[in-house]
Amino acid sequence: MANKSLAKNADDLSILVTGGAGFIGSHTVVELLGRGYSVVIVDDLSNSSEKAVDRVRTIADLSADDPRLVFYQADINDRAALGAIFDAHDVDAVIHFAGFKAVGESVQKPLEYYANNIGGTLVLADVARSHGVKNLVFSSSATVYGEPEFIPITEDCPKHDATNPYGWTKSMLEQILTDLYVGDNEWNIVLLRYFNPIGAHESGLIGEDPKGIPNNLLPYVAQVAVGKLPAVGVFGDDYDTPDGTGVRDYIHVVDLARGHVAALDWMGGRVGDGKARGLGSIAGEPDADGTRRGVGIFNLGTGTGSSVLDVIHAFEAACGHEIPYKVKPRRAGDIATNYAACDKAREELGWVAEYDLARMCADGWRWQSNNPNGYKA
Amino acid sequence: MANKSLAKNADDLSILVTGGAGFIGSHTVVELLGRGYSVVIVDDLSNSSEKAVDRVRTIADLSADDPRLVFYQADINDRAALGAIFDAHDVDAVIHFAGFKAVGESVQKPLEYYANNIGGTLVLADVARSHGVKNLVFSSSATVYGEPEFIPITEDCPKHDATNPYGWTKSMLEQILTDLYVGDNEWNIVLLRYFNPIGAHESGLIGEDPKGIPNNLLPYVAQVAVGKLPAVGVFGDDYDTPDGTGVRDYIHVVDLARGHVAALDWMGGRVGDGKARGLGSIAGEPDADGTRRGVGIFNLGTGTGSSVLDVIHAFEAACGHEIPYKVKPRRAGDIATNYAACDKAREELGWVAEYDLARMCADGWRWQSNNPNGYKA
Repeated sequence: MANKSLAKNADDLSILVTGGAGFIGSHTVVELLGRGYSVVIVDDLSNSSEKAVDRVRTIADLSADDPRLVFYQADINDRAALGAIFDAHDVDAVIHFAGFKAVGESVQKPLEYYANNIGGTLVLADVARSHGVKNLVFSSSATVYGEPEFIPITEDCPKHDATNPYGWTKSMLEQILTDLYVGDNEWNIVLLRYFNPIGAHESGLIGEDPKGIPNNLLPYVAQVAVGKLPAVGVFGDDYDTPDGTGVRDYIHVVDLARGHVAALDWMGGRVGDGKARGLGSIAGEPDADGTRRGVGIFNLGTGTGSSVLDVIHAFEAACGHEIPYKVKPRRAGDIATNYAACDKAREELGWVAEYDLARMCADGWRWQSNNPNGYKA
Repeated sequence: MANKSLAKNADDLSILVTGGAGFIGSHTVVELLGRGYSVVIVDDLSNSSEKAVDRVRTIADLSADDPRLVFYQADINDRAALGAIFDAHDVDAVIHFAGFKAVGESVQKPLEYYANNIGGTLVLADVARSHGVKNLVFSSSATVYGEPEFIPITEDCPKHDATNPYGWTKSMLEQILTDLYVGDNEWNIVLLRYFNPIGAHESGLIGEDPKGIPNNLLPYVAQVAVGKLPAVGVFGDDYDTPDGTGVRDYIHVVDLARGHVAALDWMGGRVGDGKARGLGSIAGEPDADGTRRGVGIFNLGTGTGSSVLDVIHAFEAACGHEIPYKVKPRRAGDIATNYAACDKAREELGWVAEYDLARMCADGWRWQSNNPNGYKA
């Protein structure tokens, strides 16, 4: 079956977003709606809340029955449920966020991670294909670079072995989705390699809501700031970095979300304003019908590294008080410095991250302080 | 749930064999029965014939209702069917052959290969685990070495990128199964990396029965020998090898099958005669209950390389007439020489390949000439 063309105005395109109630998913839905796309969210709520969907409607000023945003609670491993959703909606493309994402848990529960992340993606791709949808944007991760061969990391940096099943699912799915295109050139795939998304929507209505003790630095810092946890653990202060703590590329989740919109625009041969233009210089060289085919790989980061102490101090400035921290031993597998080269996304997608660390922390603090228990009442 | 102990006599152990009606599977079932194991075959017959199961019964002198060999036509992706089989039989270990295996087809149908091979293995592992079975022998392949870093290839040779989805499924499943053990040390996994299995059972009753034009050298040569195909294509005669044609490590399928029995014996802390002995010098150092835990990786080959022309000439000797061949250009991705170091299997499993190329061809010819259309009438 031929693939659906994305060479239309965004207003005429409907995007199925798996994991659309999650942290990055919900912010991406806001940006898609703002650009004119219609959205069908599929989320099993295993690690997210339907309240996020309600709040996306509030931000986008949509009523609960507005057809531009439809929500289904469903597991992408449920072939029948997914088929019914594709039957009910004229989906043009898929943005695929759904997946388990806790590194430590993935080591303990590898079978669940591989079955959910890889199995689910295979079902999703099969059901989408059978409905003539071969346009897919996939949530990959900078973790596929492993210990990177060079810094800043370009998309040409070789992939290295992952160090945990979560990372392997990302790396394997990149290979699997690439092979889909090799076997059938109708596929139009974008792999977005995220660096470290933090922050929240400026409204303070949606943000990161981890279950239990956060695994990542930022929600941990935010919970210390709001008084739920006693002190931030800083794992190593003797790295070869300006202040000795690890340096990472933090990116505002709204910038990251906009990267997905830019990817869709690129896939449809549009430039950044969502209008169909066919052959655009930034969009590159789509096919005759204006729709791109192939596998696009893009880093989404800021290109700037910030240390753990930079982040803590920026969050202190945002919240207006000191954040206690304790230096602890290095963790196995951590590296000193890791940040992206983002030239390819700038040149091909016309996308750059706009927000700095201060803004990330200000928005993150607004979310955290307005919602100290996340989406829970 | 604790894993079942394999520290029993083979007579007291029941092995579920997926793909047990296939080429390597059927030969392995014969060897398992000969050693005293009971066998439950699960095969969807998508690329095999139930006649192979009937003939295994003939070879093993079992009646159709002998409980030592039970056959189910079922897809390992069918969780309910697989669950019912595990409910009905007290399975102790799984030997997992089932999988699509045509390299070229895998490039054309990647989604089907990943879903069947990876998806199926994840379902199998999950159902087995939920029935207290965490003993698993997996059909891997020398393809995981890619273009090998050194020859002969030891198990320490680094894995390299696969060149097709079939190869990736093997490589990815090795990682996934290894991660199962990392997450739960009750797992007892053996990854067997096959070189090039050829030949057939000496009875001439079971052998390789490829659909359509064979992809591999040996069934192709056999079909030329029997007059079904006009000439063998020899891809390149200017390699840096003694006669200029590619050199590979061909192994008699019966030797390969015996490698699986040796692996099971090793997993249960037995040596090669199937008796439970606990801590045996060849078996190595099992746990206190005599059952091994961990991930064992073994090459199964002969350690000897044979060229394409060696194989053709050996087959000519077996069938008694000349086999026409045509030299064609090299194929992309082919390497000059590839053969195994088999010291590890010899030292730890107490296993060595016994049959030479002449015997492989004699047995292969017996099967082919007695069954020119394979299992088809």
